[in-house]
Formats: sequence, C-alpha cells, structure tokens
Amino acid sequence: MTKTSTPSPTDLAKLVLKGDRAALARAITLVESKKPEHREQAQKMLRLLLPHTGKTIRLGITGVPGVGKSTTIDALGTYLTGKGHRVAVLAVDPSSVRTGGSILGDKTRMPRLSADEAAFIRPSPSTGTLGGVAARTRETMLLCEAAGYDIVIVETVGAGQSEVAVAEMTDSFLVLMLPGAGDELQGIKKGVLELANVIAVNKADGDNIMRAKAAATSLTAALHITAGHEAPPVLTYSALTGDKVSSVWDAITLHRKQLEKSGALADKRRAQQIKWMWTLLEERFRGRLRSDPKIKAKLPALEKAVADGKLPADLAAQEIADILGL
Amino acid sequence: MTKTSTPSPTDLAKLVLKGDRAALARAITLVESKKPEHREQAQKMLRLLLPHTGKTIRLGITGVPGVGKSTTIDALGTYLTGKGHRVAVLAVDPSSVRTGGSILGDKTRMPRLSADEAAFIRPSPSTGTLGGVAARTRETMLLCEAAGYDIVIVETVGAGQSEVAVAEMTDSFLVLMLPGAGDELQGIKKGVLELANVIAVNKADGDNIMRAKAAATSLTAALHITAGHEAPPVLTYSALTGDKVSSVWDAITLHRKQLEKSGALADKRRAQQIKWMWTLLEERFRGRLRSDPKIKAKLPALEKAVADGKLPADLAAQEIADILGL
Repeated sequence: MTKTSTPSPTDLAKLVLKGDRAALARAITLVESKKPEHREQAQKMLRLLLPHTGKTIRLGITGVPGVGKSTTIDALGTYLTGKGHRVAVLAVDPSSVRTGGSILGDKTRMPRLSADEAAFIRPSPSTGTLGGVAARTRETMLLCEAAGYDIVIVETVGAGQSEVAVAEMTDSFLVLMLPGAGDELQGIKKGVLELANVIAVNKADGDNIMRAKAAATSLTAALHITAGHEAPPVLTYSALTGDKVSSVWDAITLHRKQLEKSGALADKRRAQQIKWMWTLLEERFRGRLRSDPKIKAKLPALEKAVADGKLPADLAAQEIADILGL
Repeated sequence: MTKTSTPSPTDLAKLVLKGDRAALARAITLVESKKPEHREQAQKMLRLLLPHTGKTIRLGITGVPGVGKSTTIDALGTYLTGKGHRVAVLAVDPSSVRTGGSILGDKTRMPRLSADEAAFIRPSPSTGTLGGVAARTRETMLLCEAAGYDIVIVETVGAGQSEVAVAEMTDSFLVLMLPGAGDELQGIKKGVLELANVIAVNKADGDNIMRAKAAATSLTAALHITAGHEAPPVLTYSALTGDKVSSVWDAITLHRKQLEKSGALADKRRAQQIKWMWTLLEERFRGRLRSDPKIKAKLPALEKAVADGKLPADLAAQEIADILGL
C-alpha cells in the first residue's frame, strides 16, 4: 500500500486482514480520526473486520513509573514472538507526556520489540478524554486482531482511572511492582491491585533478588488477608535479565485457562461488549448535555445549587431531563 | 399528628422540623412512594427541609452476616445517645429478606436502640432497584437530619454493590470484621475494604480477645502493604460487652476531623451531591430506554449482536441514540 492511495473501507479491511502493517497503521489513524466522515468509514471497516477478531489473548499491564513497564513489555513481547506469537502493544494513557505516534519513543522504550517483525506497537492517541482514548484503543485492538496479532497487550501508567478502562477491555490484568516492602511498594493507586489477575515483582536480579522475593512473600500474605481466595498469584522476575519472564507468562496463561474452563471468558467478553455499548451511549448522552444550548445555560447554576445543598438532586435531574425530553 | 390527617408538604415539613416522630415516619413513607403525585409532594417537602440538613455526621457501616452488625449499631447508637446525640439508623439493602418496616424486626435486632427516644430506626425500603433504594435512603437521611438527628448511620449487608452506594452518601465508612486470620476474615466482597475509613474487628471479648487483636495486627500489616499510607486504622472492640465501642467512635470522629480540617468534607459532600444528580439523570435516561417501545423492540437483538461480537458497540449505541434523538 502506498501512502498516497486513499483506499475504501472495504479495501482497507482486506489489506488489514492480509496483515499489511501500513494498512493497519492507516486503519488505526482512521479509527482515531474525529471527523464524522472518517468515523463512518471506520465503522464500516470495523463491521467487516469484526468476524475476524476475538480469538486472541488480551492482556492489560500496569505499574507505576519506574517499575520497568517498557522493559517488561519488551522482554515479554520478545519472549512471545520467539514462541511464534504475533504481539500488538497498545496504550491507554491520555494524560501521558509521551508524544503521540513517535516511533523514536517506542524504539527507545522497547528496542527489541520495536524492531521485531512479529510485533506491532502503537502509542496512545495523544488527545481526548479517557473515554475517547479507551474507545479508540478498543477499536485499535480489534484491528490488530483482524491483522493477525494473537496477543494484544494494552498498557497504562497506573496513575488513575485508566486501569479500570483497560481491565474492562482485556481478559487478564497484570500489575507490575517493585522490590521492597510496605510503602516502598506504593505509588500504585487505590483499587488497582483489586484489578490484578497476576502480580509480578520486577527487578528480581543481582542484589535485589532477595528483596524482590521478600516483597512477593509479604504481598502474597497481605493479599491472602485482604482478598482471601480471590487473591492473585504474586511472582518475581527480571525484565532486565529476562529471568522468569516465562513464569509471568505461564501465570497469565493459567489464569486464562481457568477463565476458559469455567466459561467465564466468554461471559466476561460478552459482558464487556454490552457494558461498552452502554458506556458509548452514555457518553453520547453526556455529549448532548454538554452541547445543548439550553442545558449549557442552565447547568452551572443547577450544579452549584445542588452542590450547595440548596436544590434536591432529584429536582435538578428532572429539570435537565425535561429539557432533553426524557 | 394523627394517623388520619393528610398534611400538606408544608405542614409535614414543619412537623418534621419539630422532631415529630410520626411526621418523620410519614414523610419517609411519602418519599418512598412511587406514585407521581406523592413524588411531587415529597420534592416540595424536601426542598423546604434542605436548608436544615447536612450539619450531621453521616456514617456508613458494613460487614458480612454474622459479624454482629445489629449488635454493633445497638451498642454504638446507645453509646452516642448516652453522649447526648440523636441517632438515626437507615439501611440500604434491597435484596434483604428483612421485612420492610417491621418494628418487631428492629426490636429484636437492636433492642436497646429501638427503645431509645433519642434514636430513630428505619429499615430499608423493601422493594426496588439498588439505585431506587439508595435514592430513597438518601432522601430519608435528609429528612432525619431535618428532624434533628445529628448522627445518621446507614447500614448495608456487605454482599455486593450497595457498599459503594452507601459510601457515596456518607462521610465516613466503617467496615466490621470478625476475629480470625486469612480466609476466616473473608466473605467480604472485593473492593469493600477499599472503601473503609475505619476497620473494626468485633467480638474482642472473652477467649476471643487475643484472636481479635491478632486479626487486627495482621490486617493492619496487610493494609500497610496493599494500601500504604491510605490504609485505614484497624481497631478491636466488643459489641457484646461494649468494650472499646468508644474507641471505634473516636476513630470515626478523628477521620471526620481530618476531613474537616483539610476542607475535604465540604468537597466530598459537594462532589457527592453533583454525582448524585448525574446518577439520577442517568437512571431517568435508562428508564426512558427501558420504556421506549421502539428501543424495547430493538434492544434485545442489538445487545445480542454486540455481545456476540457481530455488531460494533459504537454502531449499536448510535442506533439507540438515533431513536432517542440524542
């Protein structure tokens, strides 16, 4: 595919299905575009590709800055391509300072994987709300699946709400942590550990091995107390040396097998899809709220009165609903 | 107030403000009614009472069945009325088998508090969705505040999503636990511990004292690891003997003072109010979705196609939005 051609959604879909990297990149750009005509084309293309998606492992990864997320994805991704997998790496990270689409950034972040023909790395769309970014990442995931990538890794920075968005679009969620105990393990936001299906303590190499093992042991004990038998396994590994990266993957595939065996995987994905539809609908509803001139004029005063406790929330909601004709 | 009178919303509001228990009970019944004309009257009454609400301590309490929730509320409530407080006890618990409005039930559950003139106990509305029950409980809380109760306790059974609803309408959240370690502490749902501002291990009496203390110690350590400096304090007490019930209250007032000092209390309540307005609006929106005949006819097929991965969620959302004119 040449850069100058403007393929139809159908042609683009065909090229994506062939695994054409340039077509995939272009398809993603189409999906990320906010122009209404592009949106329409993107939907047409997605509809064609949808039957070719889903037969994949969708893995969410998070961890605080400094945990070695990029090095881990580089090591894990390379390990997986070495086993014959094709790996796509996406990001949900709207607040990131990372330059959108910078190839240099990914070359530095993931030197081996970015040079790997069996891997495809796409940074987070650089603008938009979390909802918008998550929407595009989700669709990008489908495109990558249609293009033949059988493992999709979606990363997030562990700094806020994006973890929930990633957990809601993936099958398994891997939380990376640092060696150390107590507060040293922290920086990770409240609620993120709850999402974990597997926890892996990185930097278990050299002098750190014992510290990493101690961290894993105390974390295992702590989770046993706070989460009982819902507690995820805690492993140690080193992204730097590659030691036990395979064990991390084994834990993820074990979780996956448990999901499949119990029928939970199909249920989870169906529930994710439906929830997703409602989320999109609610976003559209909120968009309408933001754009309706009557509501725009009234909303600040209504919100203030409600916040000040001067107007019952119920009454305020009704006023807005009346304007919308709901 | 006699049972046969039908006071206007204005009269009812006046009686509630005087602290008339029968009027308060009637006002709550009005708030719980689903009849449109009652709803209108309830809103008028709430609007009159709103300026007299909010100067209270709103405490959420949860714990698994068997933890001694009723005994704890009985002991804590009696301790508080003994200190000159007026205490209202409400419940958010739509799935409970508890008979709605049964006075006998509360007499058995909380024998001392139900006989206490300075206390008012109201069971959960017995029907409706969680959202509906939470809405009525929230309004009931306002009525109790207007009637002069300066501490409102909202209890929930710790079995599901209602904890989040309670945390979103209260200032502080108390999670009750049992003596024991590891899995014995469990039964409490994932995510509930995250909501806790104070955790209290009950049944620290007789032979159980050491076990309760050990449970508190291991839970403190575990939370230190999984939640760092966001970890709530963990105490032990006995609802049966009343031992250290005052310490539990001290921990709650300490949390409260921290909230007030930092200005977080005002912010929290403002945010809760606004979020509440949006929740109500979304519920109305969902109600419209459920009742619109065109959507009702289309929705099952749309949801199935989306769940099956045959229709992009985006497209399905658009179809629904188009019907609604959004």
